[in-house]
Amino acid sequence: MSKNQNIPYRIYLPEDMIPKQWYNLRADMKELPAPMLNPGTMKPIKLEELTPIFCEELAKQELDTTTQYIDIPQGIIDFYKMFRPAPLIRAYCLEEELGTPAKIYYKFEGNNTSGSHKLNTAIAQAYYAKEQGIERLTTETGAGQWGTALSMACSYYKLPLIVYMVKTSFEQKPYRKSVIETFGADIIPSPSDTTKAGRAILEKFPGTGGSLGCAISEAVEVALSTPGTRYVLGSVLDHVLLHQSIIGLESKAAMEMYDEYPDIVIGCAGGGSNLGGLIAPFMKDKIQGKADTQFIAVEPASCPSLTRGKYAYDFGDTGKITPLMKMYTLGCEFLPAAEHSGGLRYHGMSSALSKLYDDGYLQARAVEQTKVFKSAVDFARIEGLLPAPESSHAIHVAIEEALKCKESGEEKTILFGLTGTGYFDMTAYDSFHRGDMSDYIPTEEELQQGFDQLPQID
Amino acid sequence: MSKNQNIPYRIYLPEDMIPKQWYNLRADMKELPAPMLNPGTMKPIKLEELTPIFCEELAKQELDTTTQYIDIPQGIIDFYKMFRPAPLIRAYCLEEELGTPAKIYYKFEGNNTSGSHKLNTAIAQAYYAKEQGIERLTTETGAGQWGTALSMACSYYKLPLIVYMVKTSFEQKPYRKSVIETFGADIIPSPSDTTKAGRAILEKFPGTGGSLGCAISEAVEVALSTPGTRYVLGSVLDHVLLHQSIIGLESKAAMEMYDEYPDIVIGCAGGGSNLGGLIAPFMKDKIQGKADTQFIAVEPASCPSLTRGKYAYDFGDTGKITPLMKMYTLGCEFLPAAEHSGGLRYHGMSSALSKLYDDGYLQARAVEQTKVFKSAVDFARIEGLLPAPESSHAIHVAIEEALKCKESGEEKTILFGLTGTGYFDMTAYDSFHRGDMSDYIPTEEELQQGFDQLPQID
Repeated sequence: MSKNQNIPYRIYLPEDMIPKQWYNLRADMKELPAPMLNPGTMKPIKLEELTPIFCEELAKQELDTTTQYIDIPQGIIDFYKMFRPAPLIRAYCLEEELGTPAKIYYKFEGNNTSGSHKLNTAIAQAYYAKEQGIERLTTETGAGQWGTALSMACSYYKLPLIVYMVKTSFEQKPYRKSVIETFGADIIPSPSDTTKAGRAILEKFPGTGGSLGCAISEAVEVALSTPGTRYVLGSVLDHVLLHQSIIGLESKAAMEMYDEYPDIVIGCAGGGSNLGGLIAPFMKDKIQGKADTQFIAVEPASCPSLTRGKYAYDFGDTGKITPLMKMYTLGCEFLPAAEHSGGLRYHGMSSALSKLYDDGYLQARAVEQTKVFKSAVDFARIEGLLPAPESSHAIHVAIEEALKCKESGEEKTILFGLTGTGYFDMTAYDSFHRGDMSDYIPTEEELQQGFDQLPQID
Repeated sequence: MSKNQNIPYRIYLPEDMIPKQWYNLRADMKELPAPMLNPGTMKPIKLEELTPIFCEELAKQELDTTTQYIDIPQGIIDFYKMFRPAPLIRAYCLEEELGTPAKIYYKFEGNNTSGSHKLNTAIAQAYYAKEQGIERLTTETGAGQWGTALSMACSYYKLPLIVYMVKTSFEQKPYRKSVIETFGADIIPSPSDTTKAGRAILEKFPGTGGSLGCAISEAVEVALSTPGTRYVLGSVLDHVLLHQSIIGLESKAAMEMYDEYPDIVIGCAGGGSNLGGLIAPFMKDKIQGKADTQFIAVEPASCPSLTRGKYAYDFGDTGKITPLMKMYTLGCEFLPAAEHSGGLRYHGMSSALSKLYDDGYLQARAVEQTKVFKSAVDFARIEGLLPAPESSHAIHVAIEEALKCKESGEEKTILFGLTGTGYFDMTAYDSFHRGDMSDYIPTEEELQQGFDQLPQID
């Protein structure tokens, strides 16, 4: 622990440095992501087409590609004070154990009861719903982190909430259900027989463990068919990435306090919200030619939307009731294997991140889960922090990059996003300890089946 | 949220304000607690009688009643930096919800992977063991928080560890086992057939869910009968309270930064380590006549050692192999009901706290668990933090006191210890939500049976 003893292990910005504005990366992108399309007209979606599904303010943010900085309402900042600023941690112990000259930092977003970064957008979405007088929200959840975060936010604003939880996760993580119920929300395993979409999926794929895509269909259907109800989403969409920019803004401010700037920024990527939020202010510098940072998205080999997907217009859900988004996708009917990182089991990727990837600003790497869990256990023992399986994808690649530095002697500064804690993922850890965890990698044929279902667009 | 907007929600001391010394309250007590006795000779225990069980440095600290401040080794401070200073949180939302003029602060010790304050002493005990060249440690755990903390500490120092876990908790909390295994320790449900003590208890009370007292017997036996092995304890003893003084020292320093001083300090009490640590520097002021703070220990009505126990010499364990300690006790053979707050299921109470209670410096209150869980759920929804059942005992009484202030109009400053998080206690929360949680209060006859077994001392 000889290096940089003047930099503390945990950097907590003071409360008055909680950002007052979110940063909207699209306003600085050289080329915008392709617009969302109405699948009926194939024309760019309009505000009034989004507002039956989403709260008005969120729909506006979704379509706003020009405002660089958007004010965070004081009500949201007050809630942020209950768990933010989140710490930026210098991984001194990991550096020492690896014997790397690299400096490793991670932004830890699990320091709150939801256990993840999801609370950053959950509270924003619940706030706008409450302001608009919405009476009930619906959503889906994969690993359960989003469902927990939103149930906390809705409990704070006393807003009723229905959560459709991917059935595989529901069964793997019974205590997620208990936490969500503690915060007063209703929770239904998906696919379910409570919706048309759920029933159709069950008929087509009996016995399926579900997917985020299925659960989204169910939650959207309930929002559209119930008065006073709106749907909220925990990832993928641009307004979600906007709220998550607080991760990157705080990280950058904390690093600046110590004259640090990352050479590499690494984040796990399911729908892309944590990664998009983490990289946003650093990507701005890269786009503007002020820095040459390397950005790496890490995804599971079992659900490799960036590394093996197609860049095409696709639905956001399995039931094909959402608008079309141009993104790297495995096809909205792709049902990923029961990968333990439930939060990364999504067929597509944020359209903004997809565009950055297609334009070469962002790299991607796919990792098998047994390797991820090996890194997770190593990290827990060395850094004294039990990571979520999702976050451990980023840990794995951060370790890879630090070891490359060891070989080359380069003193790179690595920043990765540690999105959450693994307390509710012990079934997966048990499976890893028992040695019966396997790696599923979809075959070319399986991927082709997903691509064959992509909507035909001229 | 109009009150004291200048005080942040979460006060994080800077890293260089981590205390460099622990505070030994016994050095300032007007009358010392009665000494530990050797049950064979009935004479005060000597260092050389403790060192076969405990590491030498810890045994020295145990017997040191005169040194006010004891230096914290740099190796321990380096580990503390991974999770300390712990935040002092102003419960603005709870104050507002209660409509109380009281100011409520809580010191949150759950912001680390062990989920509790136990890590403060775990790392100290593992450090001294490693320094002494000890090859293996044994311990017991109730709720699992201590076992988790010690497995983290042992993993950090690469020290093998065997954990005897109270069987009731072992069964209620399967994922605690998974976490402890993730950190590389062995874990055995207690009572077990791996020790003489365990076999004897199983014969006398077949089908028992165990208790901390049983598990201690087993862990001590293994330490005494295996070369290179020592036993470590997570509560009750004076050296544990010493290490936990960091809770109080940090709390006091954080409050002083904002010219605050508590009128009431509240903590849950099982063996007494968190409470003893939290109150230490404030109790010093009270003993020295500098403050007139009210101190409240909160215990479960199912295991009411302070409020209904006898102040007498007793064994620390059910198997009667430890030294005798003068303490408030229900009798070492008292087997508490399967109260969900496993960490509070101990027949006795720290001898230092027992003495302070007997001398009138400390008050005590016993609370039924259904009331505790009601407060836990309210707190989670209001403050966005899911508390451990143990910690929720303190929450319950803090709310009671804040409501008294509402009635009287007094603007008291309340400080309570929020020792840990409830992520591994969802079985108990489920039971509360289903409405099938019951309150067990021992009868006078049951208590008398425990008292009848107390050793006869002249």
